[in-house]
This record gives sequence, C-alpha cells and structure tokens, in this order.
Amino acid sequence: MARTIKLALIPGDGIGPEVVTEAVKVLDAVTAGSDIEFAKTHFSLGATRYLETGDVLTDDDLAAISAHDVILLGAVGGVPGDPRLANANIERGLLLKLRFSLDHYVNLRPTTIYPGVPSPLASHGDVDFVVVREGTEGPYVGNGGAIRGGTPHEIANEVSVNTAFGVERVVRFAFAAASARRKKLTLVHKTNVLTFAGGLWKRLVDEVGATFPEVDVDYLHVDAATIFLVTDPARFDVIVTDNLFGDILTDLAGAISGGIGLAASGNINPDGTYPSMFEPVHGSAPDIAGQQKADPTAAILSVAMLLDHLQLTDAATRVRDAVVADIATRTDSSRTTSQIGDAIASALAAPALTQT
Amino acid sequence: MARTIKLALIPGDGIGPEVVTEAVKVLDAVTAGSDIEFAKTHFSLGATRYLETGDVLTDDDLAAISAHDVILLGAVGGVPGDPRLANANIERGLLLKLRFSLDHYVNLRPTTIYPGVPSPLASHGDVDFVVVREGTEGPYVGNGGAIRGGTPHEIANEVSVNTAFGVERVVRFAFAAASARRKKLTLVHKTNVLTFAGGLWKRLVDEVGATFPEVDVDYLHVDAATIFLVTDPARFDVIVTDNLFGDILTDLAGAISGGIGLAASGNINPDGTYPSMFEPVHGSAPDIAGQQKADPTAAILSVAMLLDHLQLTDAATRVRDAVVADIATRTDSSRTTSQIGDAIASALAAPALTQT
Ligand SMILES: CC(C)[C@H](C(=O)O)[C@@H](O)C(=O)O
Ligand SMILES: CC(C)[C@H](C(=O)O)[C@@H](O)C(=O)O
Repeated sequence: MARTIKLALIPGDGIGPEVVTEAVKVLDAVTAGSDIEFAKTHFSLGATRYLETGDVLTDDDLAAISAHDVILLGAVGGVPGDPRLANANIERGLLLKLRFSLDHYVNLRPTTIYPGVPSPLASHGDVDFVVVREGTEGPYVGNGGAIRGGTPHEIANEVSVNTAFGVERVVRFAFAAASARRKKLTLVHKTNVLTFAGGLWKRLVDEVGATFPEVDVDYLHVDAATIFLVTDPARFDVIVTDNLFGDILTDLAGAISGGIGLAASGNINPDGTYPSMFEPVHGSAPDIAGQQKADPTAAILSVAMLLDHLQLTDAATRVRDAVVADIATRTDSSRTTSQIGDAIASALAAPALTQT
Repeated sequence: MARTIKLALIPGDGIGPEVVTEAVKVLDAVTAGSDIEFAKTHFSLGATRYLETGDVLTDDDLAAISAHDVILLGAVGGVPGDPRLANANIERGLLLKLRFSLDHYVNLRPTTIYPGVPSPLASHGDVDFVVVREGTEGPYVGNGGAIRGGTPHEIANEVSVNTAFGVERVVRFAFAAASARRKKLTLVHKTNVLTFAGGLWKRLVDEVGATFPEVDVDYLHVDAATIFLVTDPARFDVIVTDNLFGDILTDLAGAISGGIGLAASGNINPDGTYPSMFEPVHGSAPDIAGQQKADPTAAILSVAMLLDHLQLTDAATRVRDAVVADIATRTDSSRTTSQIGDAIASALAAPALTQT
C-alpha cells in the first residue's frame, strides 16, 4: 500500500539551498526501496525571489504551500543591511507569515548534547530537553505601532497578545510531551514583571497540570532560566514558554549543545488543519553561502523531526542514528556540506550488516 | 573639608540584610580616617515589612528615600509561592517603583571574569564588558491588562512603550561609556520582529553614533547575543539594550562570569535629580537566608560602583582591588558571609606595606 506524501520545499536564501539539498538526499536515502514516496514541490521564496520579483509571499504562494502535507524550509533572509531589502521584512513577511497563517502554534526545539560534540560548557551532565515554544502569539503578533516617527517625540509600542485559547493548547501539548518523556515540565516566563501575560500562563499551567498529575511542574523566570542553561542544563526535560522567550532560550540552548549548526526545529500544527514546517534553527548565513561550508546536520535532523511528525518513526530513528554516528566520528572539519550529506545518506543506504 | 553623604540603606529580605551588613563594613573600612562621612538611614522595606504592616512602599517612604544622596539595596522578595504574598508584587511595587520613580534610566551592569574564578565556560578570553540596560521603559512599564480574566476567553496583553526621549538618553550614556573604554558598542534588540521598537532603537543608535565617530557600532539580535555570550564573550565592550533584554542578558552574563554572587549593578539617574541606587544582581534567596551562606561580594562590588558614582574613585579602586585580591585566593569555600566581609574590610584597613 504505497503512500505518497506531498512535500513543499522552501530552500530560501544563503546557505538554505545547500543544506536543503543534503536534507533531501538523506530523505531520499531513508525512503529508497520503501512504499513511501515524497512528491516534492520547490518554492522559490526569500530575499532572492523578492529582489527578482518584488514579492515576499503572495496569497497564491500560501495557498499552494497549504495544499501540501508537510514543509521543509532551509533559511530565509538576505545580506544584513542590504539597502535593496530596507523596505522588505523577509522574516516577518515570509517566515512569521507562514508560522501564523499555518497556525504553527507549537514551535518544537529539542536540545541534546551528542557524544563527540564539543560544548562550550566546561562540564554538563546528560543534556536532553525540548523547548515547546508558543508560535502564534506573544510579542510576535506584530500589533505594534509608532507615532511621531523619526522625530524627537517618537513613541514606539509593541503589544504582546496572549489568549487563554492560545496558551492552553500549547501548554497541553507540552504536558503531553513531558508525560511521554521524563515527566518534568518547566514554565519559563517573567511573571513578576509581566504580571498579566505571566498570570495567564501560570494559571493555565496550573489548570492543565492538574490533569497530568504524573508530571512535576517547575517555574523559572526567563533571566534565571538562562543561568541554569549554562550551569545545569541537565535539569531540564520539557520547557514551555512564550514566543519571544522561546526564541532566546533556544538559540542559547543551541549554543551550549555545540552550535546552532546542529539545532533542528518543527513548526507544528498539531490539529493537522495545516501542514507543519520543519527547519534548522540557524539563519541563512549569507557570508558563507555557496561555499559548501555550511553544516547540513541541523537540516538533516529537521528531516528526522518531519518523519516523526508523519509517524514514520522507524525512518526518523534511522536518520537520527546515522547523524549521531556521523557526529561521533567527526575528526575532519574540512568536509564540505555535500560530503557530510553523502556520508549520512550512504550510511542509510548501506544494507544492514546484521540480520535478526 | 569634610563631606557628609546621606546614604539610604534598604537591606530588604532573605540574604539582603546579611550582604548589606558586609557591604557597609567595607564602606566603613575604606572611608575610615578620611574626611568622608556616610550618614546612614535604614529603611525596612520588602516582603517582611509588607507582612508586618501591609505596606510595600508608601509615598512617605519614597519621599524620605529621595532626600538621600545615594541608595544601597540588598535584595527584596519573599519566599516564592508564599500565599500571604499572593496579592503583593514586591518586585513591581518596591524595586521597579524605586527605579521608575527615581528615574533610574541607566541600569549599569559590568561583567568581568576575575582571575581565579571558575567560569562554566570551557574557554574564554579577557572578558570585561558592561551592559547599559534601559531602566524606565520597554515591557517593564506595567501598561498591560487582561479581559475575561480567569475564563477560557481571557486575553492578557503587555505593552512595551519606547520613546525617543527615553531611548536617546540611555544610548547617549552608552556611547559616552564606550568612548571612555574600548570604543565598541553593540546594540542588542530584535529589530526583525519588534519592528517599531527596534526601528526606534536602531535610528537613535545611528543618530547618536554619528556624534561619536570614534566608537565602532555593532548590532545583534537578542537571540544571537546569547550565543556570543557563551562562545565569545570577550568580543563585547559596551552593550546597550532595552529593559527586558538587559534583564535576560545580565543574568546570563553573571552566570558565565562565575556566578550571580559576583554581579554588581547600579540603577543610575545620570542627571542627579534623584539618588542613584546600587544593588547586587542576585535575589533574596530565602532558602539560604540567615545562615551566613550568602556571598557578599556582589554587594561589596556594588559599593565600589556607588563610590565611583560619587566620584570617590580612589576609594572605589581600593575596594575593587581588595575584592579581586580576595577572589584570587579563594580556596576555602566554607567561609561565612561575614568572614568574607571581614577579610575584604581588613585588607582595606591594613596600613599599606609599601611606601613610595
Ligand atoms: C528569523 C526570526 C524571525 C526567527 C524568530 O525570531 O523566530 C528566528 O530567530 C527563529 O528562532 O526561528
Ligand atoms: C526582581 C526583578 C523585578 C528584577 C528585574 O527584572 O529587573 C531583577 O531580575 C533584576 O534584574 O534586577
């Protein structure tokens, strides 16, 4: 019973196309010979496309992407300070527009310190946690504004919007994740200062938590959470937090786990109404684009998350195992982007040596 | 020509009184025999006072504190989750009220990795930077609100307010600081998402920067800044940022420099209209209060900042040197709070052994 999965590919800008090429190579390798087929559509979106056509993301683009089962994105964003991009905000107009339009209310970002990866931390225990970052609310809603712009009397406001509906559903997802893992959930917020938003998060963690009695609940202010991420990251299992705090904590988490080159993420719509989107946490790094210097590992691990999401658990595990094995033996730091992809893909393609 | 300086002491809660006792001991030691006299007034404020009287900070308290030249604060805040404090927000009602009422628009937080202090980072260069955190605006203004509270339809908003007036003055202070240091300023914000507030900060950094041509200007998104704080903290000289990002970055900075037990800060009103306030970055740590386990170093380094602010530069340098010497020889981790204070105070009291 063959299964065809419609995959939208958004390679994007900078190193995006290079890492997506390797991720697709690995996806093809892990599904080769199986009855799963990925029907791929390429979408040319990002700063490059904007500079060519003036479009960031049209309604037609969005409708076409929505008609897919799942999305793999590389990275978007042009050269910082490029004057031709001054009036475009690729991040808001493309990446955030996708997350918001496709109701990606769970931004899932796992952190593991893999054996063999040098962490900037002098010591750390077994680090294996996941940040469940809210993806459709908070300070990211774009409900700001300014008056008297450009004058000495300018006032610029940003509004963080938090709804019981939006917080409850992501908190519930986080509790379910914790229940399936080591049964510990840490809410990160800043309840002592952001009393309204913080109060709402706290209330819903208490309420939803009552239905998950097996999960231990902890709370940390966001400032204190950054301390523990460098002094005791092994204490975390599931962190649930708002859109902005999640953005900050997951870059820090990427750094302590040996670099943002390994950090994968999923923008998930758990209801299945819209396609979920998987992407490396890193950006487009225009300074090294086209030079085969980028590490495709984060994009390949994003493929593992994509397979997990499609409940192709066995394939996901094989990809992850191949990555872990590759990482553990990384001595040659001069490998190109495609050499790393080739190594991981061929480990998957090799016939199993052991039989049961 | 004797000089009397009116000092308001707010020891606060938890370990606050213990660390302030040592800080005052050091202040007395460094001024002993000089013509500087500190006339001290104790203010009993914090969770303890609230539980006794129901008051957090009265208008009379505020007026009395304002009549002083300078303030030294220990830490405020009760036991987390204490139900008797459920309706009081000591942080907003006391600490933030002082910062806002006394127009402490510069929250100055230096970070140094002192010789002999074990950092959680496996390697780091010469780390010596200062965060200039805005203190009177941003998401800290308390302009949030909620509707349908406690229901499944609750909406809780927080408003970040940013004014050209408020941003310009703190940016100007930061450029002056950079100009007097290594001439590098890094703006940290999230301009790609918080486009209105970020745009205002960016514009004013550009405008004020034009009058400081000797200062190199850099920009980092807040998420990327956390990465560099753990992978390359030596790159920073002066960081200027908003109230919330500054809160987060300075706890992380405290952690990488060997712990929040060493991090000092100044809440400064550079205009001199109101007294400035110096305080350790750490909290009240009720779990170890009254046990002589707290490290008073951050409070003592806050005294050095206080002396600097009063242009008692020589005394400030002596305190800082005594702290650095003490830190460099810390082998006995069992010293009590007062033993550490005694050691530093007596190093200051000792007659100089070398003469010129
Ligand atoms: C590019 C930017 C808008 C984005 C974010 O802030 O979410 C990025 O930092 C991320 O974490 O995916
Ligand atoms: C206690 C709290 C209100 C305060 C802040 O958020 O500013 C603290 O974290 C700090 O950094 O001084």
